[in-house]
Amino acid sequence: MAAVQVAGMALMPRQRVGLSKQAAVLLGLIACTFFVATVYDHVSTRGSTVELLTAKAGSKARVAATVHKKLGAASHPVLSAGTKPVAKASQLAEGEEAAEAAPAQGAETEPKGNEYVVENNEGAVAGASAIIFVCGAIGIAFAVFLFYTVSQISLDSSGAGETEQLVAASKASDEELKTIYETIQEGAKSFLWAEYRICFVFIVCFSILIFILVSHTTEGNEAVWRWNIGGLTALSFVVGGLTSILSGYIGMMVAVFANARTTVSAKKQGEAGWTSAFNTAFRAGGVMGYSLVAISMMVLYILALIYREIFSKWEGGKRSVDYKNLFECIAGYGLGGSAIAMFGRVGGGIFTKAADVGADLSGKVIGVGDGKKLDEDSPYNPGVIADNVGDNVGDVAGMGSDLFGSFGEASCAAMLIGASSVAIEEAGWSALVFPLYIAACGIVVCLLTSFVATDLMPVKKEEDIEVALKVQLFLTSLLMTFALFPITTIFLPSEIQIMGVPEPASSFVCYICIVAGLWGGCAIGFITEYYTSHSYQPVRDVARASETGAATNIIYGLALGYQSAIIPVVIISFIIFTSFKFAGMYGVALAALGMLSTLATCLAIDVYGPISDNAGGIAEMCELPSEVRDKTDALDAAGNTTAAIGKGFAIGSAALVSLALFGAFVTRCSASMDAQNALTVKGVNLLSPVVFAFILFGAMIPYWFSALTMRSVGEAANAMVKEIARQWAEIPGLSDIAGLDFHERQEFKAKHKEVVVPEYDKCISIATNSSLKEMIAPGLLVILSPILVGSFCGVEAVAGLLTGAIVSSVQLAISMSNTGGAWDNAKKYTEKGELNGWFPFRDGSSIDDEKFKAAAEANSGDKAVRQPKGGYGSTEEHVSVKTWLAELEKSDPSRYQKIMSGDEPVVTTDGRKCIYAGKKSNVHAAAVVGDTVGDPLKDTSGPALNIVMKLMAIISVVFADFFMSINHGNGVFWTGDLSA
Amino acid sequence: MAAVQVAGMALMPRQRVGLSKQAAVLLGLIACTFFVATVYDHVSTRGSTVELLTAKAGSKARVAATVHKKLGAASHPVLSAGTKPVAKASQLAEGEEAAEAAPAQGAETEPKGNEYVVENNEGAVAGASAIIFVCGAIGIAFAVFLFYTVSQISLDSSGAGETEQLVAASKASDEELKTIYETIQEGAKSFLWAEYRICFVFIVCFSILIFILVSHTTEGNEAVWRWNIGGLTALSFVVGGLTSILSGYIGMMVAVFANARTTVSAKKQGEAGWTSAFNTAFRAGGVMGYSLVAISMMVLYILALIYREIFSKWEGGKRSVDYKNLFECIAGYGLGGSAIAMFGRVGGGIFTKAADVGADLSGKVIGVGDGKKLDEDSPYNPGVIADNVGDNVGDVAGMGSDLFGSFGEASCAAMLIGASSVAIEEAGWSALVFPLYIAACGIVVCLLTSFVATDLMPVKKEEDIEVALKVQLFLTSLLMTFALFPITTIFLPSEIQIMGVPEPASSFVCYICIVAGLWGGCAIGFITEYYTSHSYQPVRDVARASETGAATNIIYGLALGYQSAIIPVVIISFIIFTSFKFAGMYGVALAALGMLSTLATCLAIDVYGPISDNAGGIAEMCELPSEVRDKTDALDAAGNTTAAIGKGFAIGSAALVSLALFGAFVTRCSASMDAQNALTVKGVNLLSPVVFAFILFGAMIPYWFSALTMRSVGEAANAMVKEIARQWAEIPGLSDIAGLDFHERQEFKAKHKEVVVPEYDKCISIATNSSLKEMIAPGLLVILSPILVGSFCGVEAVAGLLTGAIVSSVQLAISMSNTGGAWDNAKKYTEKGELNGWFPFRDGSSIDDEKFKAAAEANSGDKAVRQPKGGYGSTEEHVSVKTWLAELEKSDPSRYQKIMSGDEPVVTTDGRKCIYAGKKSNVHAAAVVGDTVGDPLKDTSGPALNIVMKLMAIISVVFADFFMSINHGNGVFWTGDLSA
Repeated sequence: MAAVQVAGMALMPRQRVGLSKQAAVLLGLIACTFFVATVYDHVSTRGSTVELLTAKAGSKARVAATVHKKLGAASHPVLSAGTKPVAKASQLAEGEEAAEAAPAQGAETEPKGNEYVVENNEGAVAGASAIIFVCGAIGIAFAVFLFYTVSQISLDSSGAGETEQLVAASKASDEELKTIYETIQEGAKSFLWAEYRICFVFIVCFSILIFILVSHTTEGNEAVWRWNIGGLTALSFVVGGLTSILSGYIGMMVAVFANARTTVSAKKQGEAGWTSAFNTAFRAGGVMGYSLVAISMMVLYILALIYREIFSKWEGGKRSVDYKNLFECIAGYGLGGSAIAMFGRVGGGIFTKAADVGADLSGKVIGVGDGKKLDEDSPYNPGVIADNVGDNVGDVAGMGSDLFGSFGEASCAAMLIGASSVAIEEAGWSALVFPLYIAACGIVVCLLTSFVATDLMPVKKEEDIEVALKVQLFLTSLLMTFALFPITTIFLPSEIQIMGVPEPASSFVCYICIVAGLWGGCAIGFITEYYTSHSYQPVRDVARASETGAATNIIYGLALGYQSAIIPVVIISFIIFTSFKFAGMYGVALAALGMLSTLATCLAIDVYGPISDNAGGIAEMCELPSEVRDKTDALDAAGNTTAAIGKGFAIGSAALVSLALFGAFVTRCSASMDAQNALTVKGVNLLSPVVFAFILFGAMIPYWFSALTMRSVGEAANAMVKEIARQWAEIPGLSDIAGLDFHERQEFKAKHKEVVVPEYDKCISIATNSSLKEMIAPGLLVILSPILVGSFCGVEAVAGLLTGAIVSSVQLAISMSNTGGAWDNAKKYTEKGELNGWFPFRDGSSIDDEKFKAAAEANSGDKAVRQPKGGYGSTEEHVSVKTWLAELEKSDPSRYQKIMSGDEPVVTTDGRKCIYAGKKSNVHAAAVVGDTVGDPLKDTSGPALNIVMKLMAIISVVFADFFMSINHGNGVFWTGDLSA
Repeated sequence: MAAVQVAGMALMPRQRVGLSKQAAVLLGLIACTFFVATVYDHVSTRGSTVELLTAKAGSKARVAATVHKKLGAASHPVLSAGTKPVAKASQLAEGEEAAEAAPAQGAETEPKGNEYVVENNEGAVAGASAIIFVCGAIGIAFAVFLFYTVSQISLDSSGAGETEQLVAASKASDEELKTIYETIQEGAKSFLWAEYRICFVFIVCFSILIFILVSHTTEGNEAVWRWNIGGLTALSFVVGGLTSILSGYIGMMVAVFANARTTVSAKKQGEAGWTSAFNTAFRAGGVMGYSLVAISMMVLYILALIYREIFSKWEGGKRSVDYKNLFECIAGYGLGGSAIAMFGRVGGGIFTKAADVGADLSGKVIGVGDGKKLDEDSPYNPGVIADNVGDNVGDVAGMGSDLFGSFGEASCAAMLIGASSVAIEEAGWSALVFPLYIAACGIVVCLLTSFVATDLMPVKKEEDIEVALKVQLFLTSLLMTFALFPITTIFLPSEIQIMGVPEPASSFVCYICIVAGLWGGCAIGFITEYYTSHSYQPVRDVARASETGAATNIIYGLALGYQSAIIPVVIISFIIFTSFKFAGMYGVALAALGMLSTLATCLAIDVYGPISDNAGGIAEMCELPSEVRDKTDALDAAGNTTAAIGKGFAIGSAALVSLALFGAFVTRCSASMDAQNALTVKGVNLLSPVVFAFILFGAMIPYWFSALTMRSVGEAANAMVKEIARQWAEIPGLSDIAGLDFHERQEFKAKHKEVVVPEYDKCISIATNSSLKEMIAPGLLVILSPILVGSFCGVEAVAGLLTGAIVSSVQLAISMSNTGGAWDNAKKYTEKGELNGWFPFRDGSSIDDEKFKAAAEANSGDKAVRQPKGGYGSTEEHVSVKTWLAELEKSDPSRYQKIMSGDEPVVTTDGRKCIYAGKKSNVHAAAVVGDTVGDPLKDTSGPALNIVMKLMAIISVVFADFFMSINHGNGVFWTGDLSA
């Protein structure tokens, strides 16, 4: 059914618009392969239906009986069903006694505690592999196709479709553009290599730590070494880490590759320019999106296939697999991805904001008293390329690694929890790796909808951009909603006994969980947009608050951030409650996967933002005509809005993933406990000393982390300022040109042929070195805190720690990101908003008064702010304020100054007073303060908090057995209350 | 033993210094009464020692047996012992079957579920009453004595001890001082009455709600109405609310009464001036401190005595008391106190910051373009009196109500939990009301040490002030540590079985809990000081960050706030862990009481701050000579430091109190559950859907609340600005004088005899109205959220809600308060710090470079910034920078301007470059932005969060039975997992 639907969707667009040949071929390929794979899997499943049904029915009865018998009337009514008792019982019955008698001697001997499940359906593996590899291959092929399309754009001006004037300009600036492009590329490469060197060292060291600590586990009440578990976990950690590095690297190189090409595309005239520039940036984003999802899904699946062989046992021609240990070892993959993401996010976040804040500060600090000021946006500011590199480093590589981490962790958590459900285990491989099907389905759906933005409804003017991106996201979610239904009902068993849920969950309930996550993510994204876009009231209030100075701007911005957490938290709480209530931790993991199912589209949109930003920067630096810069600016503005949506997604999914991992942690710990005293049965008691104390402590970790990262930005920005000051002092001629504006520079260049070039690379290496140095402390805080707490204070302490950290991170991350975003857009609003940068004058009246609203509604650009030419009162001639001001500048410069700083209002012909709030006015200066404060909040600390919660949770999962091996999970200090 | 010690302490100082007669008499009185009361109580206890010991031994054995039998092997190992089984068993044996058979018919019939405990020791009640009433009387007598001392200072200049010059100045300004004093007094009164009118309405309405809802409770599995429970709870709510109002009113009126008298005292010359001014402010603070503690303790005790009669039953000449219901009804007292505190804190907080920010903004907004600027500190700024009133309203009445609430709630929680312990119940009245003894002991100890500051080590110079206040706090804590030991060991049973603790807690363990709270509070206080005082590095870093503008100032300030949460949270977590681990929730409540045991001293110090602040304001407005203003400024500066300590105490104690109340809530809920399924036995499972979802939701409440209050300050400040603008426009002459500085005003006044007076009262009523309007929404949010969550989603949801709210509030409250405090002091540091307002010039080098440190260490005032008279390089004559600048102002005004704005550095004789960072410089302007942002954070939202957590917790306690009566605690929506 799904396949038919997909095929139908694939065929439809072909009849309506002229797609390129490649796309048509691809579409056919997808539809067919998906259809074949589904049918094959379904048929092979049918082959063993009878056996499966028997097993299902049997298992259900057995579960109920066991639970009833084992736990008696005193047991926890909720957290009992569906855990391991059946498997354990059957395994003991199958001659496990012998193994039990033999002492554990490393990997050779079969250690106790391994629970082998007979595999009923060998064919399912082939079907699952077909689906995943075909979809993965499609994703990669599409990414290659997109890359090919982008690479077709030549950086040498072709002249085709460009105006005469532009051609002339192009020739002149071609060399400059290439130089800048190469400098950015080199800067990005050098940062990535420096960062990845550290990451490699970290991977090596930490994998050794994993190998040793994770091997230390319990058997009965004895602590034993099981080197195969540690070794395989370390291996998946290494694979996860390397995949994360690869994803980040691909995304970043493509982004850097595409930025100059977007600039070149924007040179085209009219509609073609809009379409071409948008498509270039969006397709480049897609390269990252599809390749990341496809690679990470396939690598994870290959790992699972290999481990399946390792954890298999053949008895009487039947394969039985130790799924529990298999998926526990796989969890290392998520850890690897997340650990590298941490460094990517923190290192990249510090880099980008050090460059940004550093360039900003240098404008204020350098040249004080010399009469010359450094312009922060000038191409002669030595920090400006570092700023461009930073956009790629922080927003592309960082965001990519972050979402890759979320995907890896959510999949690992879902599979780990799934493997603890008897129904899923017995339903076989397809049900076990079902989480990966969601991603596979996502690739195909995202691919189909991506043609809507680029071909079906191409962007033709400024207003189209935001619509295109939003429609993209909405359509993908809608299609996913339909596509997921058949997939869920086909591959998941119809009734699943899940730990913690009294009633078995149906596959429909699982579908609801996924869809709740999917649409919850959208809702959070759009609410985030409401609070951070200057199309709505909240940001406008913040902008208006700038009129009374920077302090009120900051107060309103902080309040907005706090307020913006309300609805997203309610949504997340609601998703958690429903999915958790009806499908336990498995439901939560599915909801997280649902939220991440549109990952390819989300990433394409996210990466689109920094590419457009950079394209604009390059256009500015090459001093291209305003037509081009207007296009790139518009692309960038839309990117800002959608970036907010992307952040909402990232936070929401991080919260769900962390909780799912928390569930996986408890599941894994409970496996080493007596059935009666296991945490899954008794629950983690909120009101136990160690738990409550560590909830409080855990809630402090995000604050600690934020303090470290925010100060790091400050320190790194200072190092940057120092270097810029050095260049300012030492490079002859730099101070003469760096402070000039666009027109002055043109004049200057006309006079002096030899133009000085600042040492951009020095600034890049300063930012690189200081950001890499500064990322160590916060990284260690997050990585070591769960390990230390678990080792010294036990698993209950870790449960408290995780709860506190998750809860606190969610609120802080949302409010930080939104506050920062709001300040950023409030600044833009003062420049462009209300009456194109003119605010109705307040004369002491309330900011929200009627008069202001009326004026704001009449927003009609500078026409609204007309002035009688002869001054107030005269009605002889109406001229636009621009003309009037140009005249005033000559006739009365001091009054002109007063007006342009916002000190004196201008009276319009209809009697309204307005003050100037645009660039260089007092209002704008106040708004800039907010923007600068928001930089580290929204791009360093806020987004990194997503990783804080996820990383702490996945570390706990991976080290769970190690914690359990220390005083039965009570820690070195015996602070826990667990019975031995 | 304690009495002897106390008496010894009391006698000692008499031999060393000449105390006033009254003090000596009082000291003797205290020592004797305390000794007599202790002996009497001890003797009467001894009379029943044998019986008591038997009861103790018996109870222990019975508890152990019951627990073992009832819960079996499957029971939770921790949360089981010491709850109600014994009482229940004995009561059933005593013919309770009859009552059980009869249906509940309101208050007349003895309802099931009442558990009467036979009282062994009637004499103990008399002893307890003696101790509490005597200590209470001492406290009140001492407060009266302090008030008498303060009132002896006449506002009419006596001339004694003043210089000729001062006498002349005094005569001139006497009238003005009186007028200002009266205006402030009237403003404060009018605000309080307006606020209290709303409070009265709230008390009436909410007590009806309590009466109805709390009466709705469960009996077995039936929901029944028990009007006596609801009625008595409502009564204690009303009493608590009225006591809170009384405390706030007393404190505020005394503070207002004392401020002008402190100013007058500061007129005295030399040492006498310092001593007298300090003593006046400190004694006035003491009036609040002692009266509040004494009154609230006695009222609570009287309530307990009355309720004891109501809940008594006589059988065979023996009284048995239903302690459980008694102390449950008493909990309303805490709720009343806390609810009023909420309005006091929020309303007062908004008032004070609306006035402060409004006055600040009006300086920026009003007169723009007219060439005339309004000075924010000018006596002709119409908002200036409102600002003074605000200090009293927010910091005195608000802080007083807050700490009164903490005290009431901690006592209620401790007694409620204590009443659930068999050992304490059987040990009788003294052990039950032991929590009040801590307060009683605190009154005496605080009283004794208070003479150290005022008489033993009187303040003689500026440096003495901070030392005196800190020594005061330290000494009180030290003395309390000794005094509490005998009290704890005498009155608490030697072994206490406490819910949730496997081993019985000894009275020594209880002592350790109290002391841990006591010293933990001190530690948090001093850490808070470290992060908010400009004597240490953190605030200096923030000040230095202002050099690169407001944005870096804000970034560093926010980071500082986040960082400052680390150690306090670790301390609170540690106190919670140890006290909870070894003495259960009773231990947590005792730790909270320990932290509050020095309440009288803390309050005296806290109230001292705003009194000094106001005294300074009055001195400024009356334009008294700089000698006087220097004194009041120094008093104020020390007050700022100690205010930080007080805030640390308030947050720490609020966290502990909230947790104790949370414990009381769970205890109370469990009483209506089956013994096996009770929350106290099974624990609250963190990993249940409803709990986790509501932890997340609860953690959002403080953010919501902060958003509301911060916006409220913005709105109210705007209303203020509007009113000031109106007066500016309408009152003739105001705009001429309001912008002048001190000297210009003197000249102006000499010319124009008729001086215009702004309409202060209008501004006060604007601030009053808008703050009262704005306090409704946040108040309702906090009050309604637990009631709605409990009614609709059940008690588990409330448990999650409370956990989230407590955890999130603690972090936010600490970081908000400290960020605000740090910004305030960073601003002061730019004015006075480094080289008296001159910062070594950074020239692009790192803020922390060596050069700067060396310069900072050489901090030697303006002497360090000498300039060769002839300009750079010349060594002919060295003059201080002040002289040099005065000359420069005439010779080169534009360079003078540049230097004074901080644009141009000054080179000192030893080659260091310095920039000016004092008032009106760029650095100072940036620091002012931080200060303004910090205002609502540190004085509105931050401190109010203390009450958020406490209030939500006490509401849950009071409504616990109501929640349990709805679908057995699963809420209207049946979202809980509780078995019926």
